[in-house]
Amino acid sequence: MKIENPKGTRDFTPTVMRDREYVEKTMSNVLEGFNFEKISTPIFEYSELFELKSGEDIKNRMYTFDDKGGRKLCLRPELTASVARMFSNELRNLPKPLRLFYFGPMFRYEEPQKGRYREFYQLGVELLGVSGVFSDALAIYAACECLKRLGLDFELQINSLGVVRGLLEELGVDDKVSGKLITLLDEGKRDGVKEVLDDEIFGRLIKISGGKKSLGEAEKVLKGFDKALAALSELRDLAILLDSAAIAYTIDFGIVRGLDYYTGTVFEIRVSGLGAQNQICGGGRYDNLIEVFGGPKTPAVGFAFGFDRVCEALILQSKLKPPEKKVVVVASVSGKSNGYALKVAGELVRNLSESKFIVDLDVSGRKLKKTLEQASNTGLGWVVIVGEKEEKEEKITLRDMEKNSQKTVTIAEVVKLLTSF
Amino acid sequence: MKIENPKGTRDFTPTVMRDREYVEKTMSNVLEGFNFEKISTPIFEYSELFELKSGEDIKNRMYTFDDKGGRKLCLRPELTASVARMFSNELRNLPKPLRLFYFGPMFRYEEPQKGRYREFYQLGVELLGVSGVFSDALAIYAACECLKRLGLDFELQINSLGVVRGLLEELGVDDKVSGKLITLLDEGKRDGVKEVLDDEIFGRLIKISGGKKSLGEAEKVLKGFDKALAALSELRDLAILLDSAAIAYTIDFGIVRGLDYYTGTVFEIRVSGLGAQNQICGGGRYDNLIEVFGGPKTPAVGFAFGFDRVCEALILQSKLKPPEKKVVVVASVSGKSNGYALKVAGELVRNLSESKFIVDLDVSGRKLKKTLEQASNTGLGWVVIVGEKEEKEEKITLRDMEKNSQKTVTIAEVVKLLTSF
Repeated sequence: MKIENPKGTRDFTPTVMRDREYVEKTMSNVLEGFNFEKISTPIFEYSELFELKSGEDIKNRMYTFDDKGGRKLCLRPELTASVARMFSNELRNLPKPLRLFYFGPMFRYEEPQKGRYREFYQLGVELLGVSGVFSDALAIYAACECLKRLGLDFELQINSLGVVRGLLEELGVDDKVSGKLITLLDEGKRDGVKEVLDDEIFGRLIKISGGKKSLGEAEKVLKGFDKALAALSELRDLAILLDSAAIAYTIDFGIVRGLDYYTGTVFEIRVSGLGAQNQICGGGRYDNLIEVFGGPKTPAVGFAFGFDRVCEALILQSKLKPPEKKVVVVASVSGKSNGYALKVAGELVRNLSESKFIVDLDVSGRKLKKTLEQASNTGLGWVVIVGEKEEKEEKITLRDMEKNSQKTVTIAEVVKLLTSF
Repeated sequence: MKIENPKGTRDFTPTVMRDREYVEKTMSNVLEGFNFEKISTPIFEYSELFELKSGEDIKNRMYTFDDKGGRKLCLRPELTASVARMFSNELRNLPKPLRLFYFGPMFRYEEPQKGRYREFYQLGVELLGVSGVFSDALAIYAACECLKRLGLDFELQINSLGVVRGLLEELGVDDKVSGKLITLLDEGKRDGVKEVLDDEIFGRLIKISGGKKSLGEAEKVLKGFDKALAALSELRDLAILLDSAAIAYTIDFGIVRGLDYYTGTVFEIRVSGLGAQNQICGGGRYDNLIEVFGGPKTPAVGFAFGFDRVCEALILQSKLKPPEKKVVVVASVSGKSNGYALKVAGELVRNLSESKFIVDLDVSGRKLKKTLEQASNTGLGWVVIVGEKEEKEEKITLRDMEKNSQKTVTIAEVVKLLTSF
């Protein structure tokens, strides 16, 4: 009976998984270097958690089911709400700022298409308990550094929702219309904005994008709108910080974020070549979300990578290059030496682990000749051979497959030899 | 509004997560050292996958829900079935033996109690496409090595289901009664066996346990039961292999495994101090499972660690000791130098990543004096201070908190200094 994996999900084979682990580890190393600490939350949550602030779109695409006690559960569709819940319940008393990151699968019901899955992975970061553009800059820097360490070419766009929301407020636009406008902008439909709000100033603002001179353009457009101008001044501070730290960016006043909870700085990172799915990272400041979950007022900034898309972008740019495996095969001359072969393999694993050598104990029961042939065919450099003679002397015979020569040495000697490669 | 995490699930805080990551990485390193390769399968599967062979008990405790297309899905309650499905669909043509491992959450509905969760973690291993006790020995060796690398004290028990099933078959016991007996034994209720099958030979067999002499005792008891004796002879071969490889074990003919699919060697690893939840690892040979999922006949052996219990056992034995963090704080003299501080922090992260140094950029906006005080109170050795003077010279001031002295040096110099610690 053949059973498939469910639609929109994936099995990751050893080869694919090796790439993904390399990407995850590289990013995690960068984040840990900046003192972000990993956390983990449950795969499913009470549905109400995401009904509070995650937005209509996400709510409609959740996988929900009932607890045997009758409570509504759902597979997590995103993780900022979970982290905010966890912070409110368990981490609120830790010294601030808290630097957290997470990695794992999320779930949204949607028609599978290229680059979109029902089970998809995010690697995300939350910096809690600190306000101001310096911490925004740290979040943005860390995001960019993750991608740079991987060698990926990308483009960073920044904006402040404070500018957009500030102007809308000062124009007297009500929340419902504002929400519609943010959704349109998030979907990249800038041309549809005019039908919802026919305002010249707003129309001009969201079309401004480019380098630092865009700040001046926006300043002219926003003359007299003090709230928007105050947010613009913060955005300028952020731009100056990024300049000093040598981070390249574009300012784009049409960049907003779809989720309801962002309040200030927002940013997105894009790559070319991924079509409609070219956004690989998004984030921003959310200063009010923790309160929604019953926590104390806690300013926060965070972002998440669309992990699957980062991997696809790396493949497209031919930058997905996990380190090569170094393998040594251990083979016994006959079944009589299998126990000794196991012992030798164990000692090699113990002593070669630091130098990332992999020990492939041949348990197939085939003839030694076959093992040597295969090692030669797959380009392996070394085979450790053990027989009764070696067992008696507590030694091994190391065969150099390239030179077609071999010598009998102690385990300490073979460790020394292999680590020197 | 306060929302809790769902009953039977856990949030893992940074401190707990650090321990868990250390345990996971240590075990993964051992397995990768033996050339096992990581794979990953979906969090949810079509329910029918687990209805085939995972057993009644697991089936009754699955979290099930409907796809919007009306198909029954469930959160995975175990992973051997998923791996067998993945192998049959995607890996069957790869060279054998295949060595795979996985790590992640599983889900079973049950009353939460100490050491039991509805969302629990397993780290598991499957060695596919090879038969015989040499590969059983490799699996057992790898399991033990994972725990030894962690420093855990444990006890290994081995048996062969071939002996138990062989005898039952030769006694003419039908499958249903056999199943009941296996379940009773798996639940540790050896005294209840007599009520189901009042047979002296079976009763004597399942009470035999101990060192290698148990093999002789069993041989006497099983005289004339050729199938059971053939399996016993294999078990003896396994014992000899483990002896040569210096693996300590107990033979226990009452050890069986609850899952329906085991066929030959079975083993369990226990620790003291965990009460009823003292089994931290279990596995064995399953030579018929792949066929059930439509794959070719593929012999296989595998095991899984109850990851949560391994962590608890390490805590109980005071063996959970992840490496200490080495932290350097970066602080700016005033807001004017924040951009340069960010740049310096980035360069330090880039250059100190190999030596596992963590860079804590102070983005709190507090006075430098406060930062130094806190670093001193938390016992941190080093603070990197940057101001306008340092920025101009492209240097930093490194303060040694212990010696209460400081000097202004280049970034290359501070990297050299810190990596020497």
